[in-house]
Amino acid sequence: MHDAPNQPVRPAVWPAAEGTAPDQEELLRLHGWWRAANYLSVGQIYLMDNPLLRTPLTREHVKPRLLGHWGTTPGLTFLYAHMNRAIRQRDLDAMYVTGPGHGGPGVVAAGYLEHTYTETYPSVTEDEAGMRRLFTQFSFPGGIPSHAAPETPGSIHEGGELGYSLSHAYGAVLDNPGLLAFTVVGDGEAETGPLATSWHSNKFTHPLTDGVVLPVLHLNGYKIANPTVLARIGDDELADLMRGYGHEPLFFTGGFDDEDPLTAHRRFAEVLDTALDRIAEIKAKAAEDDAAGREPERPTWPMIVFRTPKGWTGPAEIDGKKSEGSWRAHQVPLANARDTDEHLAVLDSWLRSYRPEELFDDEGRLREEYAETAPAGLRRMSANPVTNGGSVLRALRLPDFREHAVDVPRPGATTSEATRVLGDWLRDVIEANPDNFRIFGPDETASNRLQSVYEATDKQWNAQFVPDDDEEHLAPRGRVMEVLSEHQCQGWLEGYLLTGRHGLFNSYEAFIHIVDSMVNQHAKWLKVTNELEWRRPLASLNYLLSSHVWRQDHNGFSHQDPGFIDHMVNKKAEIVRVYLPPDANTLLSTYDHCLRSRQYVNVVVAGKQPGPQWLSMDEAIVHCTRGLGIWEWAGTEVEGEEPDVVLACAGDIPTIEVLAAAKILREQIPDLRVRVVNVVDLMRLQHESEHPHGLSEKEFDGIFGESSPVVFAYHGYPWLIHRLAYRHDRASRIHARGYKDEGTTTTPFDMLMRNDMDRYHLVIDTIDRVDGLGTRFAGLRQRMVDSRIRAREYAYTHGTDQPEVAAWQWDDNADESEPSKGTVTADTGGDNG
Amino acid sequence: MHDAPNQPVRPAVWPAAEGTAPDQEELLRLHGWWRAANYLSVGQIYLMDNPLLRTPLTREHVKPRLLGHWGTTPGLTFLYAHMNRAIRQRDLDAMYVTGPGHGGPGVVAAGYLEHTYTETYPSVTEDEAGMRRLFTQFSFPGGIPSHAAPETPGSIHEGGELGYSLSHAYGAVLDNPGLLAFTVVGDGEAETGPLATSWHSNKFTHPLTDGVVLPVLHLNGYKIANPTVLARIGDDELADLMRGYGHEPLFFTGGFDDEDPLTAHRRFAEVLDTALDRIAEIKAKAAEDDAAGREPERPTWPMIVFRTPKGWTGPAEIDGKKSEGSWRAHQVPLANARDTDEHLAVLDSWLRSYRPEELFDDEGRLREEYAETAPAGLRRMSANPVTNGGSVLRALRLPDFREHAVDVPRPGATTSEATRVLGDWLRDVIEANPDNFRIFGPDETASNRLQSVYEATDKQWNAQFVPDDDEEHLAPRGRVMEVLSEHQCQGWLEGYLLTGRHGLFNSYEAFIHIVDSMVNQHAKWLKVTNELEWRRPLASLNYLLSSHVWRQDHNGFSHQDPGFIDHMVNKKAEIVRVYLPPDANTLLSTYDHCLRSRQYVNVVVAGKQPGPQWLSMDEAIVHCTRGLGIWEWAGTEVEGEEPDVVLACAGDIPTIEVLAAAKILREQIPDLRVRVVNVVDLMRLQHESEHPHGLSEKEFDGIFGESSPVVFAYHGYPWLIHRLAYRHDRASRIHARGYKDEGTTTTPFDMLMRNDMDRYHLVIDTIDRVDGLGTRFAGLRQRMVDSRIRAREYAYTHGTDQPEVAAWQWDDNADESEPSKGTVTADTGGDNG
Repeated sequence: MHDAPNQPVRPAVWPAAEGTAPDQEELLRLHGWWRAANYLSVGQIYLMDNPLLRTPLTREHVKPRLLGHWGTTPGLTFLYAHMNRAIRQRDLDAMYVTGPGHGGPGVVAAGYLEHTYTETYPSVTEDEAGMRRLFTQFSFPGGIPSHAAPETPGSIHEGGELGYSLSHAYGAVLDNPGLLAFTVVGDGEAETGPLATSWHSNKFTHPLTDGVVLPVLHLNGYKIANPTVLARIGDDELADLMRGYGHEPLFFTGGFDDEDPLTAHRRFAEVLDTALDRIAEIKAKAAEDDAAGREPERPTWPMIVFRTPKGWTGPAEIDGKKSEGSWRAHQVPLANARDTDEHLAVLDSWLRSYRPEELFDDEGRLREEYAETAPAGLRRMSANPVTNGGSVLRALRLPDFREHAVDVPRPGATTSEATRVLGDWLRDVIEANPDNFRIFGPDETASNRLQSVYEATDKQWNAQFVPDDDEEHLAPRGRVMEVLSEHQCQGWLEGYLLTGRHGLFNSYEAFIHIVDSMVNQHAKWLKVTNELEWRRPLASLNYLLSSHVWRQDHNGFSHQDPGFIDHMVNKKAEIVRVYLPPDANTLLSTYDHCLRSRQYVNVVVAGKQPGPQWLSMDEAIVHCTRGLGIWEWAGTEVEGEEPDVVLACAGDIPTIEVLAAAKILREQIPDLRVRVVNVVDLMRLQHESEHPHGLSEKEFDGIFGESSPVVFAYHGYPWLIHRLAYRHDRASRIHARGYKDEGTTTTPFDMLMRNDMDRYHLVIDTIDRVDGLGTRFAGLRQRMVDSRIRAREYAYTHGTDQPEVAAWQWDDNADESEPSKGTVTADTGGDNG
Repeated sequence: MHDAPNQPVRPAVWPAAEGTAPDQEELLRLHGWWRAANYLSVGQIYLMDNPLLRTPLTREHVKPRLLGHWGTTPGLTFLYAHMNRAIRQRDLDAMYVTGPGHGGPGVVAAGYLEHTYTETYPSVTEDEAGMRRLFTQFSFPGGIPSHAAPETPGSIHEGGELGYSLSHAYGAVLDNPGLLAFTVVGDGEAETGPLATSWHSNKFTHPLTDGVVLPVLHLNGYKIANPTVLARIGDDELADLMRGYGHEPLFFTGGFDDEDPLTAHRRFAEVLDTALDRIAEIKAKAAEDDAAGREPERPTWPMIVFRTPKGWTGPAEIDGKKSEGSWRAHQVPLANARDTDEHLAVLDSWLRSYRPEELFDDEGRLREEYAETAPAGLRRMSANPVTNGGSVLRALRLPDFREHAVDVPRPGATTSEATRVLGDWLRDVIEANPDNFRIFGPDETASNRLQSVYEATDKQWNAQFVPDDDEEHLAPRGRVMEVLSEHQCQGWLEGYLLTGRHGLFNSYEAFIHIVDSMVNQHAKWLKVTNELEWRRPLASLNYLLSSHVWRQDHNGFSHQDPGFIDHMVNKKAEIVRVYLPPDANTLLSTYDHCLRSRQYVNVVVAGKQPGPQWLSMDEAIVHCTRGLGIWEWAGTEVEGEEPDVVLACAGDIPTIEVLAAAKILREQIPDLRVRVVNVVDLMRLQHESEHPHGLSEKEFDGIFGESSPVVFAYHGYPWLIHRLAYRHDRASRIHARGYKDEGTTTTPFDMLMRNDMDRYHLVIDTIDRVDGLGTRFAGLRQRMVDSRIRAREYAYTHGTDQPEVAAWQWDDNADESEPSKGTVTADTGGDNG
């Protein structure tokens, strides 16, 4: 698969409908393939030897520890077999998204039967020895997980945490107009919130320029220990629900009451043909509309309700209790297969019920008559290049970010809104990359000041329109995806990245915790794929958290939480990067780096409010490349001497406060040797043994001095600074200030004061920590205390901050003509558009 | 409100339908109340003086910083006014859940007009001065948030993060059979995943023994900068969707095309009467069925689609652009009200359009003719006692947990499954508390070994039944709530707790991150209510994370994540407690404490696998009371001397490994003075200045010694130990081991080895860290390295751990008759039932 071509192989035109009903011969072959896939699935769960049952089954052939999920597996293989028929008949470009990811054995079996598994893992040969290896490795130490996983060829979807199959599938088909994402939705996962809302994704895709998701709701009725909701509301309510989600439901019920499997196959082939015919009609109609200059309307896409017994084809009863068709078949129905001869016999007859001797030749290879029911080459769903996204990834054409540089003649001399500047560059990124870069967010792209992108594109929307909508930049085709569901945004973006494209997610810092668990799983996917040579590197998952904690003063406590950084820092060092650019030029340089990077989760926190600019573009590039550095111009050190204090900062607001504190100290204690350090790349604070970006002891001391106290103003929870730096020998000097959950409804500066991270408090910290200052500068210290009281009184009386705070400048000759320096703007997005 | 009675005031019988259409006079009064609520809402957003407009409006009267959300507010007040009519007419016991929580001004205005606000905050008087205060405090420093919030009387629902209104409402009505939760669902929040699945809550409530949720989908069409999906799919699809969710939708569209407001009122009163009549019929039918000994079937509950203009009654146009009925009305439509005379005039005429002079008397109090349209006393939705849950909280009757004690004659002498023992006690808790305690979880209660609870109750389920279901403990009435949505479980539990009841959430440790953001908000709610005297303490939110990281070896990397603890530890110390009981007796003692506690989030991590038992019940109680302690019996110290090494542990698996390491050291280096410390209450590791449970320096040194190296085996990410302990002077001696994201599909012991937390590595750590051992015990060190290699080789060959590891015992004479010591049981739940 790593030989896959470097370009997507999407056909320009959707293949016309060509479904013809299968004859008996074809059904028999298809059924044989299904039996083979089921046999291999059962084998993976139970066996570690005698894979072809060529000798009598003994306990030693059975794994000592039985793991996996049988229940959903036969349904998955049934659907896979039928999709294979359809792909061959219609030359479809399809992928298979396994919502019930627990059914790992089924998709692994399918890949093996299609030869992809052996192409990917040559040691798993198509013979008895290879089959033994295939069986043994399943959920075995050093082997593969029991779920669909990064290790599974053809998978873009981990089967652990459930709920994201449709989101991933829709992300995959965006800008892949010829791709069909055949997506099995488990009835368990259908109960999750993210899945429940993801059905609405059909209002955000275009029938011509995007591909198609065909959802199959796999109603096998049970979870671990309960029935599923959608299996127990009746077909009428379920049909209403699917129609309400914008789908035309096609119902299939099969496998009950000893139905002849060939009858079930024939009936399902008809249902699938109906769905695929309908899709082809919609695609043809969309092309026709487009050719006639009409925007196609949102079609009613088909979906299939697929009701089959849980653990279909498994033992009907075990120990006198119903197994097939009950929740008992969910995981390992015969958990004690090794315990007694009776149980072993049940397993034996179950395995032999698939008649492996008919299916596999003497060597152990699937006989050709069955193998040929699957498509070949890149048409195999397990070998579709988009499922190994890195193999089809095209690097972005990135316009020169330097051309968007903000002019910074002197530090603090000019004012700018960092994200607005970024938005101008992103507009150019969109223009230069019209089919493989998208922006995702829950309704905040303009509020986050990225609105320049709307000069190049619109928000993609395919529900109803009203006359005003063009003013809102809503259009049937567009490269910005907005829906009020962080889960949906994250899921779409993941699907888009996993199939070889690029993107960015902009959101509120506090509420990005909504996707904590999803990004966990994506980070795990990246970590595992780093160890799989055949999985080519993906574009990084890029966050832009712009409505950040320090601008939620008026929104109050519910909107204040900088803990997403902490959450990410728990992940493997090789995956996670956190950047806190202090101004527009550093943000540009950082984001250019992020969009070029691969296999990371990049968290970038940058404010959208007007703020002072510190570095020229050349300086910004150097600073971002180093990740942290001493800002000599801001300090008062004497070359070659240890500073008396180091004022360090990370984050745009902490940088302002540290510089304001440095300015007070420069004026009030002129002989104090102050060093100012700014940190852009948070991972630099770690020890080099802990993170590839970490500092050596020598570097650490070079930046933070060898003995001086360090007062560190940090954007988030101050603990994190200690945690990152603790391995450095002299890290205990650090005194960190940051957010302490002391927020309320207030003003920006009062919020800083509540958390002791305001300039006055940083001066107090300095006086308290530098030997000898306490007595010499007791007066200054008291004035700082008084300033804090005065600032609060002003805020509580006037509702805004004192002008001396709100309009503070580092550079007394700063350019007053720049916008809105003293204007207090709410961070609520009300001013966008 | 704090004088509310200490018992719920639920009527036993739902009031019979008595809806009669309002006459013109009644409509006029109702309309007056609505105008007053809207006037007060606009006043809160814009004004800080001249609240009754008794002098000409000037810029000085307008707030310098305009914040809030107008768009949804008039719809909320309209609905509130109509519910007031219905409550009075039918004597309903109702509460109001504000899904579009941004509409804070509306619900605050309603509470003020009902006198509740002044009763709660006496300084906000019902006169001109009080109204000035009411206006000024809104989204003002030191004032109230712009969203519905803990500060809002009658609210159980914070309006920051969206998506939980229905979950909270359903949680509120469980076991409150006479309660109506009138729940406004915003069309923005309706796009979130949690909301999308929460409609299905109607399959989990009982028509007789639970109350009723009446959802009103408030379709005002727009979010911050986009239309909403449900407003743009047409009424047919929307009706299908609601029917698919199990509802009978009633449509209301009003306020468009200059509709006379009285017409709108008359038409809506009819819709609401229809809905309430239907509910009364359902309730009556359920009572009839019950009296006849039939279980009532799941009814089709009504819901209302309420389509009104965004920013209804606001300015039609501002600066030539459409405002009312557009996204521009979402937040502050006249953001520049102070800038020009023209804008000020727009605000002035907008405010005067409500004719405040007709509504308020000379003092500034709402005239009686309007005030009397609202109900009185506890019938006011803003004063419903359940919305101040602590005021109706009844302490649980807790059976003596000591009676469930596991016999532990000597440490390690017996084996038990901790959560199974807890389950026995929880069964008794359920029996003793049949109407105010429930267990919530995503399909894992039995898998987590709590299945004894099914001796006392069932899983509540009100979708279709099939004959097998009683074996699964499914029943229309029950006290265990299971659905495959952590969001739903969390939301229900929050609603249940917020209305004064008790509960427990059991789940996978890895996937509890799904609710990171929700628990953030609940923790914030608790923190704020700690500062509001009138809000009475709630029962704690209790987690039981039993399928924890160290038993996910076979499920692989996707199921391994102990970071929820880290997430919680970022919250305020006064709110968060984390417990890691090492065995069954400590788990019992811990959980008894949790169920008695108030206003905390208690995170309890405890395994469900058979494990050695360490402490007798008396010892367990002492140990849990202290939170941590020295296990003298496990160490080899000499009294009065500093130990050579401290082996510390927190968590059930780390405890086993530390004791196994201690045993090796005792045998191999008999003269080494080893101290073993076990930590149950993780917060004890903090400095006393950081957490109420924190240790003083003296206590810390007393436990961890003054100079010895500390090798700490911790359940989660090892960073956290450093982070918790760092303020202690001698914390840098700690060398922490824990989970490092080095998991894969493997065996339990190999997973420990991958993360360097196995017994052999802890011995190596000891040798490497205690002065002089390295040279003396190079041979032992090498044997430990060899043991690791051997253990891995065994696991990778056999698929299970070596018997010497899997069946390891601290006590060589341990009782072999106890269950399954050497049995390897998968943590996948397949063995339940």
